[in-house]
Formats: sequence, structure tokens, C-alpha cells
Amino acid sequence: MNFMTIFNTVLTFLAEMSVGDGLRYIGAGLAVFTGFAAAIGEGNVAAHAVDAMARQPEMAGNIRTTMLIGQAVSETTGLYGLIIAILIVFAA
Amino acid sequence: MNFMTIFNTVLTFLAEMSVGDGLRYIGAGLAVFTGFAAAIGEGNVAAHAVDAMARQPEMAGNIRTTMLIGQAVSETTGLYGLIIAILIVFAA
Amino acid sequence: MNFMTIFNTVLTFLAEMSVGDGLRYIGAGLAVFTGFAAAIGEGNVAAHAVDAMARQPEMAGNIRTTMLIGQAVSETTGLYGLIIAILIVFAA
Repeated sequence: MNFMTIFNTVLTFLAEMSVGDGLRYIGAGLAVFTGFAAAIGEGNVAAHAVDAMARQPEMAGNIRTTMLIGQAVSETTGLYGLIIAILIVFAA
Repeated sequence: MNFMTIFNTVLTFLAEMSVGDGLRYIGAGLAVFTGFAAAIGEGNVAAHAVDAMARQPEMAGNIRTTMLIGQAVSETTGLYGLIIAILIVFAA
Repeated sequence: MNFMTIFNTVLTFLAEMSVGDGLRYIGAGLAVFTGFAAAIGEGNVAAHAVDAMARQPEMAGNIRTTMLIGQAVSETTGLYGLIIAILIVFAA
């Protein structure tokens, strides 16, 4: 048992990537995958913005500003995912 | 039991790709898969843009500009996924 | 039981593809699967474009141009998935 544990540890150290490290990268992928919903939400905002613009052309500037503010708020969760993914990738 | 574990560990070490590396590439695929939603969101924006253009033809230029701005914001999360995927693929 | 385990391990070693390699290809498939959504989004754009064209026939050229621009933007994430999938397939 003692010998085996030492031997196993040495070999794991010499191998390129352990299962634990591989699982870590799956975690990173899952973290950045949060942006999935942000992209759908932002597309939805822009889709309704162009509709609104066609309905009230004189409000075009105001509609575009509101669209960008709404998208910026929706983007935040995607950024959270990106930050955590980077932290996971560069974790020791 | 003792011998088997040693033998198994050595063989795993000699194989070309470890399970950990395979899991790492699943993480990379999951990261770039974030673009899935960006494509749906951007398509939704463009679909509503052509509708809006048909409703207010004189706003066509303005609508197209807003469409591209909205799509650019929606694209960002897809780019986050691409960046993380490249980081994972070329991770040591 | 002991003999069977040894025999099994040797055969696994001699086989062409390790579990790690198999997982790697799942990652590649997942990466290129991103194009799934690009196809839906782009089809949605074209579907609304022909509707809009029927509503405002004199805007046909403008609508077609906008459709192609919107589809090109939506295509990008599918291309990201293709690039990552190729990187994964040809990874060492």
C-alpha cells in the first residue's frame, strides 16, 4: 500500500494531464457557457428594438440607447462566466 | 492486486492520450458551444430587422445599423466561448 | 479473476484507441455542433425575409442584402465551432 501510493503519485506527476485536470477544464467550459442565455436575451432585445423603431421612427435614437443599456445589463452574467472560466483555466 | 495496479498504471502512462486530456477537449467543445445561443439571437435580430424594414422602408438604413450593433453585442459571449476554448485547447 | 484482469488490460493497451482519445472526439463533435443553432437562426432570417419581401415588393433588393448581412453574422459562431473542432481532431 505504501509503495503503491508512492509509485502511483510519481507516475501521475509524470503524465501529461490527470483526470482531475481534465474535469477542471470541463468546469471552465461550463462557466463560460453561461453566456448562452445572455446571447439569446440580447438578441431578443435587439429584435424588439428594430420592431419598435419601425413603429415609431422619430424615437429611433432613444430606442437604440435603451437597447444598449438593456443589453449591457444582460451581458453581465456572461462576463461573470468569463471571469470564472479564466480563473479556473489559470488555477494552479 | 498489487501487481495489477502497477501494471495498469504503467500502461496508462504509455498510452498516447490520457483520460484527463480527453476530458479537457470536452471542456473546449463545451466552451465554444456557447456560440449556439449567439447564432439564434443574431438570427432573431436579423429576422425582425427585415420585418421592420418592410414596415418602414424609409428607416432601412437606421434599422440595419441597429441590427448590426445589436448583433455585435450578442456576438460577444460567443467570442468569450471561443477565447476560453482556445485557452483550453492550447493549455499545457 | 486475476488473470482476466491482466488479459483485459493488455488487450486494452493493444487496441487502437484509448478512452482519452474517444473523449477527445466527443469534444470535437460538441464543438462543431454549435452550427446547429446557426442553421436555425439563418433559416429564421430567410423565412422572415421572404415574408417582408412579399409585404414591400419595392424593398426586395434592400431586404435581400440585409438578410445576407444578418446571416453572415449568425454564421460566425458556427465557424468558431468548426475551427475548434479541427484543432481538437488534429491535436497531438
